[in-house]
Amino acid sequence: MAKEIKLLGTWASPFSHRIELALKLKGLQFHYLEEDLSNKSQLLLQSNPVHRKIPVLIHNGNPISESLVIMEYIDETWQHQNPLLPKDPYARAVARFWAKFIDEKGKEQEDAIEEFSQQLKFLEGELKGKEYFGGERFGFVDIAAFFILQFLTVLQEVKEAELMTEEKYPVLFEWMEKLQGNEVVAGCLPPREKHVAYVRARRAAAEEAASKTKAA
Amino acid sequence: MAKEIKLLGTWASPFSHRIELALKLKGLQFHYLEEDLSNKSQLLLQSNPVHRKIPVLIHNGNPISESLVIMEYIDETWQHQNPLLPKDPYARAVARFWAKFIDEKGKEQEDAIEEFSQQLKFLEGELKGKEYFGGERFGFVDIAAFFILQFLTVLQEVKEAELMTEEKYPVLFEWMEKLQGNEVVAGCLPPREKHVAYVRARRAAAEEAASKTKAA
Repeated sequence: MAKEIKLLGTWASPFSHRIELALKLKGLQFHYLEEDLSNKSQLLLQSNPVHRKIPVLIHNGNPISESLVIMEYIDETWQHQNPLLPKDPYARAVARFWAKFIDEKGKEQEDAIEEFSQQLKFLEGELKGKEYFGGERFGFVDIAAFFILQFLTVLQEVKEAELMTEEKYPVLFEWMEKLQGNEVVAGCLPPREKHVAYVRARRAAAEEAASKTKAA
Repeated sequence: MAKEIKLLGTWASPFSHRIELALKLKGLQFHYLEEDLSNKSQLLLQSNPVHRKIPVLIHNGNPISESLVIMEYIDETWQHQNPLLPKDPYARAVARFWAKFIDEKGKEQEDAIEEFSQQLKFLEGELKGKEYFGGERFGFVDIAAFFILQFLTVLQEVKEAELMTEEKYPVLFEWMEKLQGNEVVAGCLPPREKHVAYVRARRAAAEEAASKTKAA
């Protein structure tokens, strides 16, 4: 069993963390392969020739790309263990809508991140009065949202900007803290200090590259 | 039955056409409401407060937005009539991957359309050797792709650019012609002349607005 599921990811990517958590919630054993994005493996290039991006799940030799597509696949393939999407078609549609919303708004990450923080009011409204986005159960949208928002708090620290404060989004904040306290969820997160240092270094490198381009 | 399904759309939108076709393929009666995007209805604003965009499907009073999310909902709700997605989870994942690919690449439409036409090689490769993207059956990816590519041919005519020629993409071309010859599919397309005139007028207006901004 352990050999038939492979996950190609990187330690700092919220999109990898989604898949890691989904597999763990299903109680599945898998083989995690860390990718070096500056020197991508042949396996990654062959498995995702269109986008050449992580995460990629390889199950019995069949590669699947795009984190939300992978999450749907995991939920359908192991549907009796800890369902991620609700059963009702309308509730499923609502979950897919929010997952898509998170990906569209959070996608460009660092560039669009301030705009994204303005969009959080919609997520705050959706979560209000509920334990999780999935209702009483942690589910699809929770997985999709958590690691992106976690990443947002890392950026917030690096940029010293107020993107997602407790005052502005108390409901999301409480939910974040609840999830950070969950062992399985927390086990998919990289060490905070390491993550902050990495994002800081990457931003500094990007700024240096930009200033060189300007000078040239 | 006719009253319980409402579709808010616009006649020239490939995203509306997707839903129209999906409903027709399921043999469903529905009430189509044409939206004026310069003066959106209260029903649209209430039904899709996040994006305020068409298409929106309202089923028994429950609104659903985002065309691919709506298509999944239609397929799940009326699963025994003419399935749009295959049954096998891996085949479903592949279909979702391509539908997402089409939406990402085709999304910004007019601006990004030349880049999109370069990406068609991936779709050409995926379709090669098959009757439809869905294999022997017309399905989810076919619906997602057809109206966008049809729109591309309209833009091609307006811009007098070679975006999607038969020489470059013979497989896609043959598939397009096959679908244009299908009565149900063709019945969801606006009259070609009217569509071309509309896109031409919209482009002219956009260009005028841009030149005014420059002058100011």
